Amino acid sequence: MIDVALIHYPVVNKNGDIIGSAVTNLDLHDIARAGCTYGIGTYWVVLPDAMQQEVAAKIIGHWTEGYGGKVNPDRRDALSLIRICSSLDEVIDGLTEQDNKPPFILATSARKDKRTMGFNAVRRMSESDRRLLILFGTAWGLAPEIMERVDGILPPLMGKGRYNHLSVRSAASIILDRIMAPEYE
Amino acid sequence: MIDVALIHYPVVNKNGDIIGSAVTNLDLHDIARAGCTYGIGTYWVVLPDAMQQEVAAKIIGHWTEGYGGKVNPDRRDALSLIRICSSLDEVIDGLTEQDNKPPFILATSARKDKRTMGFNAVRRMSESDRRLLILFGTAWGLAPEIMERVDGILPPLMGKGRYNHLSVRSAASIILDRIMAPEYE
Repeated sequence: MIDVALIHYPVVNKNGDIIGSAVTNLDLHDIARAGCTYGIGTYWVVLPDAMQQEVAAKIIGHWTEGYGGKVNPDRRDALSLIRICSSLDEVIDGLTEQDNKPPFILATSARKDKRTMGFNAVRRMSESDRRLLILFGTAWGLAPEIMERVDGILPPLMGKGRYNHLSVRSAASIILDRIMAPEYE
Repeated sequence: MIDVALIHYPVVNKNGDIIGSAVTNLDLHDIARAGCTYGIGTYWVVLPDAMQQEVAAKIIGHWTEGYGGKVNPDRRDALSLIRICSSLDEVIDGLTEQDNKPPFILATSARKDKRTMGFNAVRRMSESDRRLLILFGTAWGLAPEIMERVDGILPPLMGKGRYNHLSVRSAASIILDRIMAPEYE
């Protein structure tokens, strides 16, 4: 079982400063739709700011309880996977209580270290009964204090060149495909 | 070599009517960034409406020639891959002149027919000297008049369930990863 969390704080900006980022409508939609396609558990949106939480709740409500969901039930199914929360601790505590053990936490990073695991190893692990929680960072990525807490790190998504600046929407979609897609020709 | 085209007209709406869709900022960014990561040739944005072309040109110009590109050169590299044009014919004519032969045109579809090719077969073809042009539809997908013209069809992106409503940004990213990513663990 895999859960996904999108972190808006603490993340870093271009200069490496710790910041909180604003919620982005299509981060909610695109990652929820990919999560629904591949069958994740919950899509946690970590958003400490109360006003930002209200914005996110309004968007999600439009599609899960409001007019959007009536005219587009596919979108309702996807956005129903979202749970807004205030901190990564809240996600971990929620999952620990639910599963009676803490999740195995994974992040993506451009740097390799001894925690780096290949996509195929993560796929095998996801087929066991251990819950995996994959963290995605907004802005310029997850803050060091988050990276210190993760159990495993996924390799960066690279093409043949050195450019690796995918949007978080694209990165999350590709990673779920690599880890969760059924075999294809 | 692979080129990508995002079609805003003719596409279909929920009821199957032929419509033109409006340009979406993050369709430009996300697909350009994925294209730059995996090394496509050109990202063609097919957008017949003159005012919509102006909107797209303004967005792209901000990142390729304006302030955006100065503070974020990675984004400039990606958005430089975009070429706005008025019709699929313009794309095909452009590529035919450039390559001295027409591109092999692929689309994605939820339905299989005798033109359906697996991702691995398309990957092998992309490594030959034939240019592949992969079409993505906005709104509810490519119009029948476009589907009639394509040479090959990619299978739908599916998880274990029946939900297959990815955003075009996610679908394009996953398809480029499946066809163009170097081998990974």
